[in-house]
Formats: sequence, structure tokens, C-alpha cells
Amino acid sequence: MRGGTPGGIDCSSVSRFHEPQHPDFVRMNTSVGFDRRLWPQDIAQSRAHAKMLAARGIVSAEDRDALLHGLDEVQRELEQGQFVFVESDEDIHMAIERHLTELVGAVGGKLHTARSRNDQVATDLVMYTRERARAAQVATTRLMGVLVERAGQHIDWPLPGYTHLQRAQPVYLGHHLLAYFWMLARDRERFAFAERQCSLLPLGAGALAGVNFDTDREFVARELGFEEPVPNSIDAVANRDFALDYLGAAATCATHLSRLGAELVLWSSSEFGFCELPDAWSAGSSIMPQKKNPDAAELLRAKAPRVVSHLSGLHGVMHALPLTYNKDLQEDKEHLFDAVDTLELALAAAHGMVSGVAFNRERLAEAASDELIAATDVADLLVRRGLPFREAHGVVAGLVRVAGDSGKRLSELTVEELRAQSELLVTPEGARGDDAQAGAAPDGAAEFYEVLARDSWLESKVSMGGTALPRVREQLKLARAVLADEARG
Amino acid sequence: MRGGTPGGIDCSSVSRFHEPQHPDFVRMNTSVGFDRRLWPQDIAQSRAHAKMLAARGIVSAEDRDALLHGLDEVQRELEQGQFVFVESDEDIHMAIERHLTELVGAVGGKLHTARSRNDQVATDLVMYTRERARAAQVATTRLMGVLVERAGQHIDWPLPGYTHLQRAQPVYLGHHLLAYFWMLARDRERFAFAERQCSLLPLGAGALAGVNFDTDREFVARELGFEEPVPNSIDAVANRDFALDYLGAAATCATHLSRLGAELVLWSSSEFGFCELPDAWSAGSSIMPQKKNPDAAELLRAKAPRVVSHLSGLHGVMHALPLTYNKDLQEDKEHLFDAVDTLELALAAAHGMVSGVAFNRERLAEAASDELIAATDVADLLVRRGLPFREAHGVVAGLVRVAGDSGKRLSELTVEELRAQSELLVTPEGARGDDAQAGAAPDGAAEFYEVLARDSWLESKVSMGGTALPRVREQLKLARAVLADEARG
Amino acid sequence: MRGGTPGGIDCSSVSRFHEPQHPDFVRMNTSVGFDRRLWPQDIAQSRAHAKMLAARGIVSAEDRDALLHGLDEVQRELEQGQFVFVESDEDIHMAIERHLTELVGAVGGKLHTARSRNDQVATDLVMYTRERARAAQVATTRLMGVLVERAGQHIDWPLPGYTHLQRAQPVYLGHHLLAYFWMLARDRERFAFAERQCSLLPLGAGALAGVNFDTDREFVARELGFEEPVPNSIDAVANRDFALDYLGAAATCATHLSRLGAELVLWSSSEFGFCELPDAWSAGSSIMPQKKNPDAAELLRAKAPRVVSHLSGLHGVMHALPLTYNKDLQEDKEHLFDAVDTLELALAAAHGMVSGVAFNRERLAEAASDELIAATDVADLLVRRGLPFREAHGVVAGLVRVAGDSGKRLSELTVEELRAQSELLVTPEGARGDDAQAGAAPDGAAEFYEVLARDSWLESKVSMGGTALPRVREQLKLARAVLADEARG
Amino acid sequence: MRGGTPGGIDCSSVSRFHEPQHPDFVRMNTSVGFDRRLWPQDIAQSRAHAKMLAARGIVSAEDRDALLHGLDEVQRELEQGQFVFVESDEDIHMAIERHLTELVGAVGGKLHTARSRNDQVATDLVMYTRERARAAQVATTRLMGVLVERAGQHIDWPLPGYTHLQRAQPVYLGHHLLAYFWMLARDRERFAFAERQCSLLPLGAGALAGVNFDTDREFVARELGFEEPVPNSIDAVANRDFALDYLGAAATCATHLSRLGAELVLWSSSEFGFCELPDAWSAGSSIMPQKKNPDAAELLRAKAPRVVSHLSGLHGVMHALPLTYNKDLQEDKEHLFDAVDTLELALAAAHGMVSGVAFNRERLAEAASDELIAATDVADLLVRRGLPFREAHGVVAGLVRVAGDSGKRLSELTVEELRAQSELLVTPEGARGDDAQAGAAPDGAAEFYEVLARDSWLESKVSMGGTALPRVREQLKLARAVLADEARG
Repeated sequence: MRGGTPGGIDCSSVSRFHEPQHPDFVRMNTSVGFDRRLWPQDIAQSRAHAKMLAARGIVSAEDRDALLHGLDEVQRELEQGQFVFVESDEDIHMAIERHLTELVGAVGGKLHTARSRNDQVATDLVMYTRERARAAQVATTRLMGVLVERAGQHIDWPLPGYTHLQRAQPVYLGHHLLAYFWMLARDRERFAFAERQCSLLPLGAGALAGVNFDTDREFVARELGFEEPVPNSIDAVANRDFALDYLGAAATCATHLSRLGAELVLWSSSEFGFCELPDAWSAGSSIMPQKKNPDAAELLRAKAPRVVSHLSGLHGVMHALPLTYNKDLQEDKEHLFDAVDTLELALAAAHGMVSGVAFNRERLAEAASDELIAATDVADLLVRRGLPFREAHGVVAGLVRVAGDSGKRLSELTVEELRAQSELLVTPEGARGDDAQAGAAPDGAAEFYEVLARDSWLESKVSMGGTALPRVREQLKLARAVLADEARG
Repeated sequence: MRGGTPGGIDCSSVSRFHEPQHPDFVRMNTSVGFDRRLWPQDIAQSRAHAKMLAARGIVSAEDRDALLHGLDEVQRELEQGQFVFVESDEDIHMAIERHLTELVGAVGGKLHTARSRNDQVATDLVMYTRERARAAQVATTRLMGVLVERAGQHIDWPLPGYTHLQRAQPVYLGHHLLAYFWMLARDRERFAFAERQCSLLPLGAGALAGVNFDTDREFVARELGFEEPVPNSIDAVANRDFALDYLGAAATCATHLSRLGAELVLWSSSEFGFCELPDAWSAGSSIMPQKKNPDAAELLRAKAPRVVSHLSGLHGVMHALPLTYNKDLQEDKEHLFDAVDTLELALAAAHGMVSGVAFNRERLAEAASDELIAATDVADLLVRRGLPFREAHGVVAGLVRVAGDSGKRLSELTVEELRAQSELLVTPEGARGDDAQAGAAPDGAAEFYEVLARDSWLESKVSMGGTALPRVREQLKLARAVLADEARG
Repeated sequence: MRGGTPGGIDCSSVSRFHEPQHPDFVRMNTSVGFDRRLWPQDIAQSRAHAKMLAARGIVSAEDRDALLHGLDEVQRELEQGQFVFVESDEDIHMAIERHLTELVGAVGGKLHTARSRNDQVATDLVMYTRERARAAQVATTRLMGVLVERAGQHIDWPLPGYTHLQRAQPVYLGHHLLAYFWMLARDRERFAFAERQCSLLPLGAGALAGVNFDTDREFVARELGFEEPVPNSIDAVANRDFALDYLGAAATCATHLSRLGAELVLWSSSEFGFCELPDAWSAGSSIMPQKKNPDAAELLRAKAPRVVSHLSGLHGVMHALPLTYNKDLQEDKEHLFDAVDTLELALAAAHGMVSGVAFNRERLAEAASDELIAATDVADLLVRRGLPFREAHGVVAGLVRVAGDSGKRLSELTVEELRAQSELLVTPEGARGDDAQAGAAPDGAAEFYEVLARDSWLESKVSMGGTALPRVREQLKLARAVLADEARG
Repeated sequence: MRGGTPGGIDCSSVSRFHEPQHPDFVRMNTSVGFDRRLWPQDIAQSRAHAKMLAARGIVSAEDRDALLHGLDEVQRELEQGQFVFVESDEDIHMAIERHLTELVGAVGGKLHTARSRNDQVATDLVMYTRERARAAQVATTRLMGVLVERAGQHIDWPLPGYTHLQRAQPVYLGHHLLAYFWMLARDRERFAFAERQCSLLPLGAGALAGVNFDTDREFVARELGFEEPVPNSIDAVANRDFALDYLGAAATCATHLSRLGAELVLWSSSEFGFCELPDAWSAGSSIMPQKKNPDAAELLRAKAPRVVSHLSGLHGVMHALPLTYNKDLQEDKEHLFDAVDTLELALAAAHGMVSGVAFNRERLAEAASDELIAATDVADLLVRRGLPFREAHGVVAGLVRVAGDSGKRLSELTVEELRAQSELLVTPEGARGDDAQAGAAPDGAAEFYEVLARDSWLESKVSMGGTALPRVREQLKLARAVLADEARG
């Protein structure tokens, strides 16, 4: 049973208390400042509840009509910003009921029949969470859409792939952008899971034990779009798992966006110079007019810990709470609401930046043409010629040393220098003749030089999911299918 | 690309480095102390990889057989505790490959063809996570089973339901225990979701860009029980979402168990006296022989923040990491492993305690018979007689005051005292005659006294999911169906 | 350099940007909604800065006077709620400078000479944190004061001390309440430490590298109450340690209060019945008029995870940030501000509840008189008679078993039953005759029965810091001295 | 009272339990696997306790000597790795007492007189924390030392200072390195604070209420290096603040190191190329011989969330715990121990990397010579000539646009082009003649070109704490003094 002055309407007549609430307690206890955003859910559930009460004969048809009419008016005032909150409105539920009673008279008090604030607030919150979980699926889909679009536009722009922030192997920008697509696709699955965890209706659980009326919870569930009622009234009022599920999805999604933000910041630096953020998503400096700062990308990065900390905060609130309802549960809302606002803004920002960022093809290509990053391909050439990989790795290490010592690029090494490291570099005889893939040329050294030509590095990654262009096209097609599929769903 | 001395086998010949690693760096970098638990996954993936390499003609059938034979021997040694780790074994992958090469010679080096430690370690970890996500489903199902069993045994034992830790309305113990059943049922869904997030195979992504061979990743996926390969090689090595999904499920599950632990501690106190934990799950005192301490229940409670902090810890590790692989990802394992161990032990402990706890029927019943907790039912009686709920609430508040002032129980109030508060308490004329549910007796006061008889409080909660016995039986049947359904699945 | 439209005044003329900021970026970037609470700090630092600029001849005395006059007017408007924010006011700093320039003309622009928003915002924040760290010391002192007062009032009221929530050994309520006093005393030390971490002035660091004027930072430091300037300009703008220090102190303090809140909830239950919260800090129920819910105590409990998560959130923001200023740092404020508000309210609530809670002497005493909790004292009697403690523990365990089996209390066991467990229980000959503390009576059994009389259990705890009344009085005196000492300091 | 089989020595004789502990409970409950590291503290406290017991006549001198002799032998075995743990050794305290009794006979049991495991374990832990807080001060001092050394070596190497990862204003490398010095100096203060929070002795509090002997706690405090005993026995066993204080210091320190790690990773990239890590702190690649990966720097970065999560984990454990001792407190140790190990290794790694990193003077200088970063200095020139800063900002923005449009550097703009933006750029008449600092040359344009010469940008930052060389030297001197001061202290 949630607290506050009982009923909130005519407290003096019903209270067993002799003192008014301390102003600090009122400040601590009052939630209308943040839970007022639940009004659409609260009114929708009240409508369904009133209809059910009448359908079951618990209130009369006339009462139901009066209640529905009053709720319409309350909704209108709230929508139009005309609703006047008064000081005793502890929470949005009390505020609506108080004003409803002002509008329709004592019959307003019948709305709370067979309902408690415990199941009422749980219902509002699960409806809200369901709505935002759906919205997050729409927003992630939207971001996935623009990632596919930008990936398609840059499908064959080479850039270095990094491990340990060291240039490792070149990839195509389309391939890189699609990596974010798949992260977001998983996030969307998480939000879909969170939505499914919102498919049971708490309403009807009463304070904790059920109610003294043979209500029709299935009717209310259908009215409000739930699959069915929560099967246990205690669980119905004590459970906030669905909020944790949303927060878990949001935390991982925000962390993905922080990786995107971090890359945008990095790539916008003079040193990388891989991209330029759109003006609409950049900031100037209060001192230096030459500066174009990636504030939005930095904030995208910085928002993840906030969402993560809301998740661990709500876990902390739930920790070790005995059943059933405890007032601690009021701490669910601010954690959830701020996470929702933060994530939705972050997704919008990511969409804006990905849409508008301009990549610098020349800078990307220049960085990708670093010949040293072909070293693995040279080793793989030796493997195809029969050398165990670990030995091939050693041969190439020798080449790198020789090149470094003589100030040459790998492609400037002579055939004799190659031979000095391994006969296999120049003579393909070690290659298994029946290996169609190896396709060793008569002159083994020619293939060595060919491997060092940039396009071959990229196009050699022919494995499924790899960066060879046909593979990226295949992947892009798959991504488009995933996008279309879910858009339908 | 994960680090370490290149190849780890014959370092001196391949290193471009002039200094050995600093001992502190070795300590920081070496993971074999904790990642050795991944050996079953590592050997399984190596077997599948070797078969695929041969099937694609990348290694010969003879090489494949030598590799598989060697892997059999390595597995045998690991299973029997005979595997000797050496100081240079930086991680379990290097240790296995090192010893494999000792066993089968240079051909051992061919195993790493078309594979990188980046995709290798991601594959081991996703296989491990999948296995533990399955194990968690089994363990939650087992706990659900014993909850159903104990609920069935105590289906009609009354106890007070609490809100704000104040006695609110009586419920049956079976109903209360089933609340935990539904929490665990949701946890099981979360672990099933985490398992599904482990259904794509990273292997074949190479260092980050794919590999220089047209490998058959679908073959490897089938061999290892994956649905299909990860579609993007960059994502394959940079992703740890599946570990976050497991940790998220584990955090919520551990938090549920902390609520259970907290109630067991509370109910074991002298003041509550609702239950006694089995000796096998209790501890004595080093000083006081009379004491029986609920150490296990306290630890059950205390483990939740540990799991939650592993979740936020891994989110922290992933925060703002640019693509693709970064060494930071090595910090995934200890967070995950300790969470797995902690959760699995906590689930076992919960099972043990729920199985063995003895409830004290008399103490529970005594607490549940507090007449004041029937107050809502009296109010509901008035509602059925036509009074708006809020007014009924006020009438009952008056009764409580009168009873308190005169030192009587509610059931000791006279008809006149009732009438003084509201005529409706004694005269049912206000009841709508067409209301079958109301069923008001000719003498309205009789019903008032009847409401105060304990069984009626419980049995009056007739709504679906409520605590009236037929409803609890219905719920128990549903729980058994859910249990059986998933056990089949 | 913090971002936003450059200068924020006449953006169009200075911007190198061609597009306006995207509305979502504006929403993400704008901080005036929450940083407006920094206006007193911002105006104070601007005053000091203006004086310094004039003292160093960087602006003229006339300019200084104009600036100071304008700042007076801005302050007046802000204090009186007349300040009008406009849409382009990105943050409080821009808002104040914008309006200052409206008031005093172009000279307003001179205020930003030798200052950047980077050092400006760091200065505002450190001043704010210092102020709240001081306020927290006052609030903890106030709570310590009431704890001492209530401890004094209940210095000799016995209650059970609990370990594992099992009754262990009786203590006096004054002793128990003082445990919270010492927690709060440590919290006060933490806030004092946090305040000391606010004693260096960032202002004068410019954007990051210092400024092009030989400013007098020591003058500004003195004006604003700092010990000295931050010695490194880079550190000055990149550092938020002081906020972490405040949050760390607040997290531990809030956790202490959560323990207090948890005990108030527990003790207010029917089962414990140890206390009743004041009406002014209790809530009723929307359904059950008999209920008095400890909502405030529950919220006190539930607020701790919120503060803790702000701490880990800000750590997350700072994680892996390269130097110097990054926009991520804007995420410091909401974490800090909400933690401040939450903690200050929690301290006020704790004060209110501790002041007004009524303890139930009878219920406490009844619980404390459980004879079994004297078992350790019996064991200690045997130790004084020469038995090693571990053996004495075994003897008493035997007594407990015998008593339990025969349905007797310990004090109802006969001398023969005692003798059957250990001769030492009835014959003090084993006692060292020179041990004044032992003070064995001629008849050893008499002492046994005496030990079981309640007062002796409490008064036997004569060690320093123990619960014997003289020790508690000693402790109370010490607490009063600590309180007075700090109140002076 | 901590749990386990009572006494742990001859359990069968003393237990009131009929069942042995469940194996899973034993696994959950047993802490000797991790708390064995507390043996030095446990033996030291036992020695002091034994001496005190004899000094107070609670045990005889002979008993004391036997105990001390036995403890010597136990210590020797532990030091030399000869101590044999047995299966029933639940924790290190029981293991030591068990073996002590084996060595010296029944007198071993007297050691636990006037002591409980509750105060014993708190004492071990506070002693351990104090020791590690001291060690952390030594380790931070050592890192500060090498930062000062490297700063001195690179005091005048220019590099760009970054805000938003955009080049903002040039600074000297010595200045940049010293920024880390000051962070570490604050960390050292935090560890010193944590150490001070370890200065009160819990021992003597007994289980929770004090003990039945007039012990001399001040004697024990002196023996063990504490200032005085904890004044409240309840607080003594329920408090873990000191561990939170250590963890708080460690979390902030680790976060500082994560910033250092992030910069080392960034600066080691090809794109920045500012430094090369020593071979001893770098890793190769299992595939690419050309790679030198900054694994150690990445791990330095990745360890911070681990320490932060231990902090929030322990806060979670303490949340809402009623007094006094609860078994939950056993969860303090693993959080603390792993944080200690992680932090100490991270500090050692940071020391190794800072010591050995080689900076690339040319790359740094090249990046620092980007002329655009002088823009602020040009604006400041105009300010000195009398223009309000905000207007000067606009003028320079115009210059940047003109330069950009015409493909010129700023220093290539003609006098006419300057004049077109502002007469003040070429004519210093606007300057206040009495302004010694302005020192405008007869030809105002000359000064403009002079400002654009790189050295002047750096040397113009003459404010205290700024990057002008005399200021950095001043700062370095201060840093050395701080270092020496604390080394003495």
C-alpha cells in the first residue's frame, strides 16, 4: 500500500494521525514532480477499470459514464496544459482522482473500488515502459537504417582496421559502419525482450492479496493491450523486473553509442582527419574561432555511464527488499525516466551525426595504404605454399626487420633479399599443386609483389563476413533484409 | 589481434623486440590463471576448425588427423589433471597450441591457419557463456520446482502479507512462495534470451577483417552448435554483448535471491519466528552455543551486489572503446567467471534452503489473525452497499478510532457503535438489490461480524491471482504447467 | 574550451559554421536547465576576476566599476526571480554575460578577458562543491547532536543486541544509538576532506594553457576564499576529483542512513514493536485506515543506491578521458547536483525521525530478557574459573541441550544438573584465588544463578567501549566532547 | 558473532545441530581460500591480545608464554609455506587457532578469551587496509617521482594541448606530464586519509557488546600501532568504512591511471605518433609481426571500472544492513583484496611505462606548429589594444575565414587584408598608452606577425600555472618540494 495522507481528498476526516506531515517529509515523499508524465497511462487504465467495474456490476452504468466523462475532461486539461495541480497532490494518481472528484462529484471516489495505489502504480509504470521499449525499437531501427544507407554509400572506401588502436588490416568503410548496424540490431532485440516483459497486467492485484470482488482482469488486460494478467497478486505489486529489463537494454545500447561517439571524436581529430561532423552537430569555442568541437559526439560518449548507473541504482533499490510493496519502489521512476530521456536523445543524436558526417576519402585511403599492414597476407602466401603458419610468421618478421634496417618498403626488397629469408618467397614449388586457391604463378616472387598491392589486401579477405567487396555486398544485403523484416514486424 | 610474444613458440626468432617483457607486465598480461577454464571450448573449436581446414583443402587430411589426434591427447591430459603449464603459457590458447606442437610437431602450427586469437577467444567465450546460460536455466528450473513443491505443501497456511513491513492483508503461504516462482520464471526467460544471444559463431573473422581463405564458416557453426556465423568480422571480434546479457540476467536473478535471503533472515528472527532453517544451512557461534545463525541466507542476500557490480564493471570496460579488438576486452573474463560462480552457488544455496526450511504454522497463523488487517474488507462491504470507496475508507477509520479509544477489538463493537459511524454498516438497504456478489444478509450487521472472521478475509480475495484458495490452486496449476512446459522445451 | 555557439552573443558574425545547430543537439548541449544553480558562484568569481583585471591594469578602473555595477544588478534579478532567460542561453555563464552586456554595453565583453569557460566552469563547480561539503558537515553535526541527545535520554534502556538478526547479547539503547553517532562523525570527516580538496582555485588556467596576461591568481584566490591557485593549468580544467570526493563521502553517509532507515522500518513492525515513528514522518494507506507506514524510513533506505550510482556514474564519465577538457565533463553536474539534493534531504529526514521516534521501553526490555542470551556469560564464568574458553563453550552447549530437552529455562536447572555438565559450575575451586575480578562466591552455583539475572549480563560488559553503564556514560561524554569540539572548529 | 561450526575444534561435542553442513553451504561459507592473506595481521593481534590477557591477570604468565611460543611456530610454518590447512579450516582465524592448539595443547583455547571472531576479523581487516593504504602512498610517491623526472627531461618540448581532442593551444610536454603528477598527489592524500580512518582498534568489542573482563584495550592499541580503541563496541564490529575509504581512493586513482593509459594508447597510434612504449611493456601480434601493441596501456585503462565496481559492490553489501554484525560483511574481503591487487599492479605498470616511454620530439613539434592554434593569441592582442574580448573574437573569426577562402596561412595575410578586418590589427593607437604589458610596437602589424611565431604562443602564457617556460620551471620546483616533503613525512 503506497502511503501519503489517506485518500488525499479529505484527509482530516480519515486520518488517525495527530500531526501534519513534516515539510521535509512532504518533499521526500511527493512524486508528482516526476510521475506526472504517467498521466496518459493513468487515465487509460482508469478508463478500462471503470468499464470493467460496470461490466461486472460493481458500479452502475451511470457511474461508469460519469467517470468516463470526467476522465475525458481531465485528459483534455492535461493535454492542453490547463490542469491545475494543487499542493496536496502527492502523486499524479491522487491529482487525477482529486480533480475527477471535483468534476463529477462523489462518484469519483468509486473509481478506486477494487484497486489500490500499489497495483495502479505498477500498471502505469509497466505501460509506460512498454511504450518506451517500443519507441526504442523504432529509434534503433531508424539508426540502423541510416547506418545501412551510409554503409552503402561508402561500401568500397578503404580505411585501416585497428586493433589496439594500431593499424592492423585495411577494411572498407561500409564494412566498418555495418559493425554498428549489428550492434544496434541486437539492441533492438533487447528492447523487444523488454517489451515482452511488459505483457502482463498488474492491475487487479489490489494492495497485495487480490481484491474482494470477482473482477474481470482479462477484460482489463485486453482493453489495455496486455496478453494476460499477472498470475500472482504479490508478485504483481512487488515486481519491477520490466524496468530493469529496459534499463539493461538501454545500458548496452548507450555503451554501443559511446563507442560510436568515441570513434567520431577520434576521427574528427587533426591527427586522424577521417571525418568532419556536420555543423549542426558541432560547437564552436568561446575563445578560439578556428575550432570546431565534436561536443555532441563527446556527450554521446559520456551518457553511457549515466544509463549504466541508473541500472545499477535500481538493482540497488531492489536489493534485499522483503515482499511485497515497499516505499523504496518509488525510487524506480527517476532512474527509469532519466534513462529513457537520456537514451532517446542519444539515439537521436547518433542518427543526426551518422546522417551528416562527411568522410574524407583521401585521408582514409592514405592511412589504409600503409604497406606494413600487408604483412599477414605475405605470411598467408607462405602458408598456401606449405609452410606452417607459425614459421611463416617468423619469415615475415625477418622481412620486416630487413626492410626497416635498410630503410626500404617491403615492396622495394629485391628477389635476392626475399630469397635470403625463405626460398618459398620466390619459388612456389612448395605449394601443393592441387590447391586451386593457391593459384601460384610460375614466378613466385611476382605473387609476393602482387600481395603488397593494396587492393589485393582487402580483396583477399574472402571469407564469409570478411571485408572483400563481394562479402560486404552480401552483408549489406543481409542487413537490408533484417531491416525490412523488422520494419514489417 | 591479441598480444603476447608473437606466436608464443619460438619468440626469439620472430620478435622485433629487444627487451624481454617486464615481470609486472607479464603478471598483468597473463590470463592463463583464469582463462584455463575455457579449455573444453578451445579444444572443441580447434577440432571443428581443423576439420573445416581439411574439408576446404587448406590443410591435408593427414595434417588434420595429426591435429585431431594431438588434440585428443591434450584433452586427456587436461581432463586428468596431467597437463603441465609452463611459465611462457600466457593464456590457455597458447598453452594448448604449445603443447599440441610438442606432441605432433610442426604441423601443430598449421592449426592457427585462417584463425586469429581475436576470433578464437571470442568463440571460446561465447561457447562458455552459452553453456552457463543453459546451466542457469536448469538451475532456475530446479529452484522453481522446489518452490512449487513447497507452495503445494503450504497452500492454505495463513500468514500476514506485508506492505512497508507492516501487516497489511493475510495471504496463504503457498501464494507467497509462488511469488518467488514467477520471479525465477522470468529469470529463466532472461537466461534463455542470453543463450539466444550466443547463437552466432565469431570464428572465421580472423584478426578483424576476415581471412585470406574461402573458409566454410557454416560448417564450423554447425559443428559447434551455432545457428550461423556472425555476419560482420569486425563485430565478431569487438562484441561482448552476450556476456553483458548473461550478466544482466544474473544480476536480476541474484537480486531476486537477495529478497528471498532477506526474508529468510527476517523470518528466522525470534521476533518473527516464522521459520527455522535446516541445520545443514545454518551456522553456530564461536561464542554463544544457543545461537543458530542464518549465515547462508545472509550470504544469499550479500551476493547480489557482487553480481550487479560485475555487470556495471563490464559495461565500464566496454565504454568508449573504439573498434575493433582492444586488449581491454581481456577484462571480460574475470567479471563473467566470478559472476557465474557466484550465481550458480547462490541458486544451489537457495534450493537447499527452500527445500529444507521448516515453517512454523502457529506463529504464522497468530500473526495473520490480527483483526485490524480486516479493515479493508469492512470498507469493501460498505462499497458493495453503495458507498463510494473514499467515503467507506473514512467510516472505517472512524471505527478504528472508536475501537482504539475504548480498548475493544473491532469485532467487539456493538451494533449501536456501528450505527453511530454509518447506518450502512447495519442496514444493507443501500446495497443494490441486483448485485449477486453483494449477497447482503437481511441483518446487515451480521455480515460485518462475519467479515471480521479471519477465513473470510483470505477467502474474500476472489479476483484472479488473488489469495482465495481456489485462486491459489488455479495459480499453482498454472505454475506446474509452466514448469513442465519448459522442462520439455 | 567548452562549446556552444561561439560567444553566444552575436553568433552569426563570428561563426565559421553554415548551419544552425540541430534542435536535438541544442537539447543535448544546453545545460542552463541544471547549471543555473551555479549563479551565485559565477557572479562571485566574476566580481573577483574583474577586480583583479583592474588591479593588474588589464581593464581600467571605469570598466571594472561598470562590470561590478552590472553584476550587482544581475544578482539582484536572479535573487528576486526577475532574471529572464532567453532561448540562446546555453548555460548559466552565457546567460549572465549576455544580460550583463545588455545592462552595461560592450564593456561587458571585457569580463571574459583572461578567462575561458573551461576554467570558469571548473571554478564555479569547485566553489559549489566546497559550499555543499561545508553544509554536509553542518547537517551531519546536527544529526550527531540529536543522536547524542536521544542516547542520553535512553542511556539505560535495555534491548537485545543482534548479530545475524538473532538476539545475541543485551545492550543499552543509548549505546546502540551512539553507534550511529560514530558513523556520522566519520562522515563528517569525509566531508571535511572533500572540502579541503576544494581549496585550490582553477580560475586563471584559461582554456588549458594559462593566459596571455600576467594575472594575479593569488589575489583572486584570496577574494574567493581559496588557499592558492591550482599549480597546473591543464590539471585545473581537466580535474573533477573534488566532485568525486564529495560523492564518495555522500555515498558512504547515505549508506549509513540506509542502515538507520532499515532499522527504523524493522523496529516499527508489529513483530519487533520497538518504536513508533512520529506522525509527521509517517504515511497512511489509501485503503487501510489502520495502517501507519514508515514511508520516510523506507525512502531513507532507498536513497543510498541513488547516491552510490551517481558516484560510479561520474567515475564512468572520467574513465579513459584524454587530457585536457572534454565535453564529457559537462556530465559532472547532474550527478553531483542530484546527489547533493538527495543527501541533504536524507540527512534532514534522518534528523526528523531520530528526533521524534518514540521507543517502547517495555517491548525492548521484554526482548532483552531472553535468558538464552546469557549463555556467553556463563561460559565466561567458567573461564574465570580456569577452563579454556573453547571447553567452557562446550559445557554451556551441554547446558542448553539439557534445558531444551527438559523444557526448563537455564535458571531452573538444579545444582545436580549443573554438576553433571561440569564440576566447575558449582565449585569455584578452579578459580585463581588471586583474581579480584573473578570474585567467586563460596558457593559456586550461586554465581551461576546470579549471572543469569539480566542486569548482570549488561553490567558485565565492563571493557572500554562496552555496554556496561559506566562505559556508556564514558562514551557519551566523549561523544559530547567530539560534538563540541567540531562545532567550535 | 561470525558463524561456522562453533569453535571449529571439537564440533561434535558442542553442536546443537543434528545435520552436518551441506557441501554447498560449506563452499559458500568457507573463506580461508581468500582470507588466508590476513595471517600476518591475525598472528600479530593474537600476540598483543595474549600479552594483554596476562598483563591483566586473565591468563597466567605461563599460558601467555605458551601461546606466544606457539604463535611463533605457526608464523614460521606460514612464512615457509609449511602450514598444512585441513578441510575443516573455515577461515584463517580458525586455521591458526586449530593448529595452535595442536602445538601447545588445550591452553590454545584460552587465546579466544575476551575476544570474538567479530572483533577479531574487523581488527585483521583494518590492519590489512592500513598496511595497503600505506603501500599505496609509497607507490603513488614512486610514480610521482618518475613523472617529475620525465617532466624535467621534457620541460621544453612543445606539443599541442587538446580540448575536445582538437588541437587548442600548444603546451610543453613537461607541463602536460606534471598534470598527472598533481592527480597522483591528490590520490596520495586520499590514501593518507584512508590510512587515518584505520587508526582505531576494534579488538576488545567482543561479539558486539564488549567483554566480561576489564581488558586493557589501550595496551593492545599501542602494541598494534593504533591511536586508540574504537569507542563503541557495536560500531567496532559493524563498521567497514575504512575499506570503503580505501576503495574510494583506489577508484579515483585507477581512473586517473585510465586517463594516462588512454593517452599512451592514443599517442602510440600511427596517426599521433607522439611516443613509443618500451618493448618491455609492449606486446606483439600472433599474426602480424610488424605490430607493437600497447597491451599494458590498454589494461591500465581497462582496470579502472573493475576497481570502481568493487567500490559500488561493497556499498551494495552494506546497504540497509541492520546493526550489528551480519554475515554479509564477509563479502567485504574479496572486493577489497582484488581492488588492492589490481591497483598495486596498475601503479607498477604506470611506473614502468612512464619510465620507459620514448617521446618523439619531431612529431610533437610538428603537431604543435599548426598556426591556427595561435588564433586566441591574436584575439588577445586586440584586447590589449582595447577591444572587448567578444569583439576581438569576431575579428579573428573573420581572419580565419579569409585565410581559409584564399588558401593562405594566417601569417601570409597582407597588411591590407588585416586592415580590412580591423584597423586595430595594424594600428596600435587603440591601445591604452599606459599599459606596460601591451607594449605595442610602432608598427602594429609587426606584432601581429610576431604573435604567429610559435615560441611566442607558448611563452605568452605567462600566468601562474601557465605553460610559459618560467612558469613550468616554477611548477616543477614546487612539485619537487611536494615530493620531498611527503617522502620525509
